[in-house]
Amino acid sequence: MNIFVLGTGMTKFGELWDSSPTDLAKEAMEQSLKTSYLTAKNIDALFIGNMLSGILNNQLNMSGIFSKELGVYIPTLRIEGACASGGLALHSAVQSVLSGTYRTVMVLGVEKMTDHSAEDTTAALMAAGSEEERSAGATFTGMYALIARAYMEKYSVKEEDLAAVSVKNHFHGSLNPKAQFQKPITIENVMKSSKVADPLKLLDCSPISDGAAAVVISSELPTVWEERPIKIVASTIGTDSISLHDRTSFTSFSSVVQAADKAYKYAGISPADIDIAEVHDCFSIAEIIALEDLKFSKRGQGARDIISGKYSLGKGKQIINSSGGLKACGHPVGATGIKQIIEITEQLRGKAGKRQVKNARIGLTHNVGGSGSVAAIHMLKAER
Amino acid sequence: MNIFVLGTGMTKFGELWDSSPTDLAKEAMEQSLKTSYLTAKNIDALFIGNMLSGILNNQLNMSGIFSKELGVYIPTLRIEGACASGGLALHSAVQSVLSGTYRTVMVLGVEKMTDHSAEDTTAALMAAGSEEERSAGATFTGMYALIARAYMEKYSVKEEDLAAVSVKNHFHGSLNPKAQFQKPITIENVMKSSKVADPLKLLDCSPISDGAAAVVISSELPTVWEERPIKIVASTIGTDSISLHDRTSFTSFSSVVQAADKAYKYAGISPADIDIAEVHDCFSIAEIIALEDLKFSKRGQGARDIISGKYSLGKGKQIINSSGGLKACGHPVGATGIKQIIEITEQLRGKAGKRQVKNARIGLTHNVGGSGSVAAIHMLKAER
Repeated sequence: MNIFVLGTGMTKFGELWDSSPTDLAKEAMEQSLKTSYLTAKNIDALFIGNMLSGILNNQLNMSGIFSKELGVYIPTLRIEGACASGGLALHSAVQSVLSGTYRTVMVLGVEKMTDHSAEDTTAALMAAGSEEERSAGATFTGMYALIARAYMEKYSVKEEDLAAVSVKNHFHGSLNPKAQFQKPITIENVMKSSKVADPLKLLDCSPISDGAAAVVISSELPTVWEERPIKIVASTIGTDSISLHDRTSFTSFSSVVQAADKAYKYAGISPADIDIAEVHDCFSIAEIIALEDLKFSKRGQGARDIISGKYSLGKGKQIINSSGGLKACGHPVGATGIKQIIEITEQLRGKAGKRQVKNARIGLTHNVGGSGSVAAIHMLKAER
Repeated sequence: MNIFVLGTGMTKFGELWDSSPTDLAKEAMEQSLKTSYLTAKNIDALFIGNMLSGILNNQLNMSGIFSKELGVYIPTLRIEGACASGGLALHSAVQSVLSGTYRTVMVLGVEKMTDHSAEDTTAALMAAGSEEERSAGATFTGMYALIARAYMEKYSVKEEDLAAVSVKNHFHGSLNPKAQFQKPITIENVMKSSKVADPLKLLDCSPISDGAAAVVISSELPTVWEERPIKIVASTIGTDSISLHDRTSFTSFSSVVQAADKAYKYAGISPADIDIAEVHDCFSIAEIIALEDLKFSKRGQGARDIISGKYSLGKGKQIINSSGGLKACGHPVGATGIKQIIEITEQLRGKAGKRQVKNARIGLTHNVGGSGSVAAIHMLKAER
């Protein structure tokens, strides 16, 4: 069975003080319906990716809320897997279509994070870590700092090398009108930004963001369909220990390796076939490890490959995070996995505007929750 | 494709002060593996139903935690839909098997609610209601009290009639060694119990509970299998407005009607074919409305049918809540939808001990979230 991506919709990502979660969801859902040339009545089910609404807003049980905004009360499920909630929701949605239960479904990722103090949001985000990590006072920046240190020592990599991730992604974000940050930065900017958790500095970290993103997927193309058909050719997820202290490695995420290996095999696609990828750069080190776990770069070479321009628009052939990634496009956690699908879809359709990657045919998304505890991998292919 | 229920496992439900959420999950998962004659390596994916862990324990991202307890890091998804989280998780699990992605999966429902003050837990449960309801100071007992009033006026039903639900379910619970309350009660006990939200009294309400329940489902029976094969022949979900004020009726839940009608049609089963059902009696009035929405009783006749003994063990022919229901067996919210499946499976296998329903062949489960905002319906059938 084919799984086609139909319409897509997303809000701008950023500090959207004037919008409620339902405002954001409504905007993304309406846009995805319109670009699908469908009405709400054509949607058989809704899948929601959201992480923090329960803790930050005491709002769970979101099925009725968002299906009301969509305009039809249809089967609706909410999936939560920390920052991978969007990717996991899409995985469930794909299975629901493959099962034959539903034909056309919508996947909505939504998160409203800026209505709270930085302390409250940071504490809430630690719900993605383990109890031991929380009680030890760890933050995600702190944990990724440990990962960065381990990587830097193992592969003789410097802080300036990590900074290259943010420089690349801010350059890409500067070409994306939906990005939270649309301003290029330099290695010096990163190096001079304030330390958050040594060796990670402010500009090594993705921001706290609001935003929503929605896609419609279906086993059939609508009868009138002029866009280039895009298929989801693999949808896999992987799991690992929630706690860093249970891991055998700090410099590779086994959840990602499991899911990616399965996806490559299933789709019959090799890492070299991938023209573009959106990877989960919650911190600069996370992108470097992603490049290696996805087998785009050799072990220890991720940072050097970024510095060489291999993954940059206008220079390389395998463009990573053309949207700006989590770093520059923003990271409203539940929405991130869906935004990645939208970016790849627009690129494969040749509709990515100033940041268009030439002749992109095959794309990959890599969405991670916690410090690598869960991972969702999707592969998309343009049909012609 | 067939979907078989293999092994089942559940903890006792109740105030389990000595057990952590992972202790509870581990016990239920191990029991369900053992009774499946399988090891963890035979499980392709894990689906978790849980509502409150984020709000009460600041713990989200549970994939790594519970797959560690299971003993294998496999694809794991957490589904949240308030008190229907268990039923929704099973719905996702069924689709994942139907899709061909996984062959054998485990569904775990788990909730730890008693480690917090009653005030904190009640406030957390209101996350299943709407913002307007929360800010108006409503509780779920208050909302179901409004529903009860509307029903009582419309159909000339008295408080004593509602009480018959609790009396029946406590009688059934008295035969269930896993039930939180194993003591029969009388109409007088219910009538004399303290008012919580007029007309609902303490003994009209299901308790706050801890517990876990797990089932293994598969498209194939293990090669060595001596239990009676039980198939899931329908799995449907329905959605309605989260807010009571958006509803057209207080005396019927359209989420349930949608899902049940679809399930009856899909399975080719009529309400009269159902030998046993586990329905979501979070409050006495909820069971009465369930009986009517599921078309076991005519509109306005639910309470009278209960009083007549139609649904009671030893008297009726269509036994409702043989486990004791949420009222007597307990209601650890994420676990409830899975416990319902376990009760039906044990009954269909003829292994329900003192509460065995004779010759039960077809069973139904009805799991609701919020005040009817989401509903999951499953139908199970014994093969021989």
